[in-house]
Amino acid sequence: MLIPDLEYCELKERACAVNQAIGAVGLANLTWGNASAYDPDAGVMAIKPSGVPYSQLTPDHMVLVSRDGEVIGGGLKPSSDSVTHLVLYRAFEHVHGIVHSHSTFATAWAQACLAIPCLGTTHADHFRGPVPVTRDLTDEEIASDYVGNTGLVVVEAAVDSEGVPAVLVARHAPFVWGHSIEEALENAIALEHVAEMALTTLSLNSAVSPMPSALLARHFERKHGPAKTYGQ
Amino acid sequence: MLIPDLEYCELKERACAVNQAIGAVGLANLTWGNASAYDPDAGVMAIKPSGVPYSQLTPDHMVLVSRDGEVIGGGLKPSSDSVTHLVLYRAFEHVHGIVHSHSTFATAWAQACLAIPCLGTTHADHFRGPVPVTRDLTDEEIASDYVGNTGLVVVEAAVDSEGVPAVLVARHAPFVWGHSIEEALENAIALEHVAEMALTTLSLNSAVSPMPSALLARHFERKHGPAKTYGQ
Amino acid sequence: MLIPDLEYCELKERACAVNQAIGAVGLANLTWGNASAYDPDAGVMAIKPSGVPYSQLTPDHMVLVSRDGEVIGGGLKPSSDSVTHLVLYRAFEHVHGIVHSHSTFATAWAQACLAIPCLGTTHADHFRGPVPVTRDLTDEEIASDYVGNTGLVVVEAAVDSEGVPAVLVARHAPFVWGHSIEEALENAIALEHVAEMALTTLSLNSAVSPMPSALLARHFERKHGPAKTYGQ
Amino acid sequence: MLIPDLEYCELKERACAVNQAIGAVGLANLTWGNASAYDPDAGVMAIKPSGVPYSQLTPDHMVLVSRDGEVIGGGLKPSSDSVTHLVLYRAFEHVHGIVHSHSTFATAWAQACLAIPCLGTTHADHFRGPVPVTRDLTDEEIASDYVGNTGLVVVEAAVDSEGVPAVLVARHAPFVWGHSIEEALENAIALEHVAEMALTTLSLNSAVSPMPSALLARHFERKHGPAKTYGQ
Repeated sequence: MLIPDLEYCELKERACAVNQAIGAVGLANLTWGNASAYDPDAGVMAIKPSGVPYSQLTPDHMVLVSRDGEVIGGGLKPSSDSVTHLVLYRAFEHVHGIVHSHSTFATAWAQACLAIPCLGTTHADHFRGPVPVTRDLTDEEIASDYVGNTGLVVVEAAVDSEGVPAVLVARHAPFVWGHSIEEALENAIALEHVAEMALTTLSLNSAVSPMPSALLARHFERKHGPAKTYGQ
Repeated sequence: MLIPDLEYCELKERACAVNQAIGAVGLANLTWGNASAYDPDAGVMAIKPSGVPYSQLTPDHMVLVSRDGEVIGGGLKPSSDSVTHLVLYRAFEHVHGIVHSHSTFATAWAQACLAIPCLGTTHADHFRGPVPVTRDLTDEEIASDYVGNTGLVVVEAAVDSEGVPAVLVARHAPFVWGHSIEEALENAIALEHVAEMALTTLSLNSAVSPMPSALLARHFERKHGPAKTYGQ
Repeated sequence: MLIPDLEYCELKERACAVNQAIGAVGLANLTWGNASAYDPDAGVMAIKPSGVPYSQLTPDHMVLVSRDGEVIGGGLKPSSDSVTHLVLYRAFEHVHGIVHSHSTFATAWAQACLAIPCLGTTHADHFRGPVPVTRDLTDEEIASDYVGNTGLVVVEAAVDSEGVPAVLVARHAPFVWGHSIEEALENAIALEHVAEMALTTLSLNSAVSPMPSALLARHFERKHGPAKTYGQ
Repeated sequence: MLIPDLEYCELKERACAVNQAIGAVGLANLTWGNASAYDPDAGVMAIKPSGVPYSQLTPDHMVLVSRDGEVIGGGLKPSSDSVTHLVLYRAFEHVHGIVHSHSTFATAWAQACLAIPCLGTTHADHFRGPVPVTRDLTDEEIASDYVGNTGLVVVEAAVDSEGVPAVLVARHAPFVWGHSIEEALENAIALEHVAEMALTTLSLNSAVSPMPSALLARHFERKHGPAKTYGQ
């Protein structure tokens, strides 16, 4: 049994709830994905422990890791992808939550080494343009700090990290983020549906013309930004 | 907490039940779809509030909107697609319920900017011909009254609004209707299955010949119209 | 409320259970499919009533129809496909149960007007060769006794009704049968999986060579016939 | 009723749990798959009985079979694939559990007579290279000891039985193994997802370049072998 740790209770509870949701909504099978919540004032992230099934997770399983990579709380080893999360938090000031899924269709686009084009308003409601894919890591980058370098190629590819809160890591799977871990989860769910519908759309009509930019902007702006009309 | 509003109780209960069903049967994820029930005598529609998850909806969340667009009851903002619904109610006298889904396969046909051809009796049981797709909106139509203009292109495309109670909005998703909101839901469920089977059929045999018109008419008539033999 | 009818209780219970299962296991949505159980000694079939949702069915809803088409029990109208069932019971002495589904992939093969080739042992365990597809009905056959003529083209296509207990009605959906209604249900479940895997197999390798006949025979014989080794 | 047999209780409980899971997680429908747990010290395998539905299984249904094929416990007939399992246990010393599934996408690759290429890190996390497919059995091999010969072609194809714990039997379905029956189940779940994503990847980009070997090795090694960093 883990001894309950009273520090960062809320951060760990929210990280736990989203990690459980990854399994429950089918964004990853077995133990393939992970999520973290970041407290920017403290410079601390709460992240899934490595290799623990989603259904068994409790808040006290969450591992607390400092901004520079030190484990500062929790009795388990953090996710093997932890350093990738930290690279993203350090690069993107506004990002306070990250979901790394292995969801079927988004991962297929990543394995195909293709960006997901914006083909409809469901996409535009969440992502202000194509969801980019990284370049391959070099053999040197794989041999040295592989997990950190995965973060670096994500940062390289994320040319609009506010408007397009997701990147596909080539031959791997997506990293998705948000202003909170809950928003990152919502974006990861949206990404999977957008990925499935983009594949299906192209199988029906591989020559469909690009989405008009006015329509893309209209949909993104009505859900985001100062003049949004969506929601309560 | 919302104060219960005793007006239009039945209309709001039915609208709530169908909006909940949209989430439960998988016609839309997150908060992407919406349904409304229309009372033609009162000229009032009960519609989903904007951005509220399906699982949290109660009848008192439903927003009452008059035929000309005034919010007349309910403490929340109506769906951002409300004006599209109103344009359809004003254009089609017989329509008393509308479902706007983002279901995977119907949306893929919409994103592909293709009408769904009638390839089998499941289709013909519900739709007396292809399910049409709208033209693209012009940049001017997007910039001005976008939501109302979405309704206008639906009306333009709906050349047989009685026999084919659905239209795909190009690059967006379907709008589906019925003599009641419950019938609109049934048609939206049918549309999604028909959309999936049409895609699968064409992937097996892209050169399949069109459905004989005698067979199409036979199936539509046995479920609809004065001489129907289906049901109790 | 229906008055319980004590005749043919077991037949109606079994018919009800399989009709409920059609909905529960996803072989048909809404009210698109139907199943019947046949008592060959009495010459009586118990079949689903027309247009009643699967989840609401009780044994007393089942309609009793004689071998020559007379409704002899039950207060509801029988399935609109009833005459097709009767044509099959009259043509095939060994058939005592029929399931008519609209399951997604089997229906797609029917809509594509293609027989399902035998591409693996899952197929061979249940069907001793390709699952045939009917010819189109003529306009005259559609205009006259459409439901009966649907049965006639099924009988025409069923060249091995013992070894291949299913036929796809072109542009419609499958009819599947068995020595009992429970076996018909099992065959309908198998057909849907076989149909999905055949489509997926051909999308991976459209030039795959036919299944060796020795392997096909080996698998069919180990589950069927006098020398079967499968089961208890 | 079966009389409880107190021998090999744990082996039978574990075999039962994994056989139930095959049905519950959708790795096989009806009674198409089977799993066994092997005790190498005793030379005894506990395996599913033939033709019993997954949901009805209890530990006492499991059949105990000796290394050389003798039924030594349990009142039912063992799976018709039992001899295939025994051939694998005799060939691979480290294998103590086997799952034979008929999962949709892995079976489609088997029916297509194609090995599953390694296209991403999800694959590499579980399989150190492509998942091979067997040759066809000859007519003589089918006519004589078919079930044993199925094991022989699996052994032939399994060139890296430690690093790639699965083989697709051509035109049939996968056999998957592990150091324990629980690991075999995990590998069978992984195989099905990998099979689906490989198909989807190739449908998006049939010309995707092979996975860099450095990336493949990096992922396999971080979950397996002496220097693994994954898990607790």
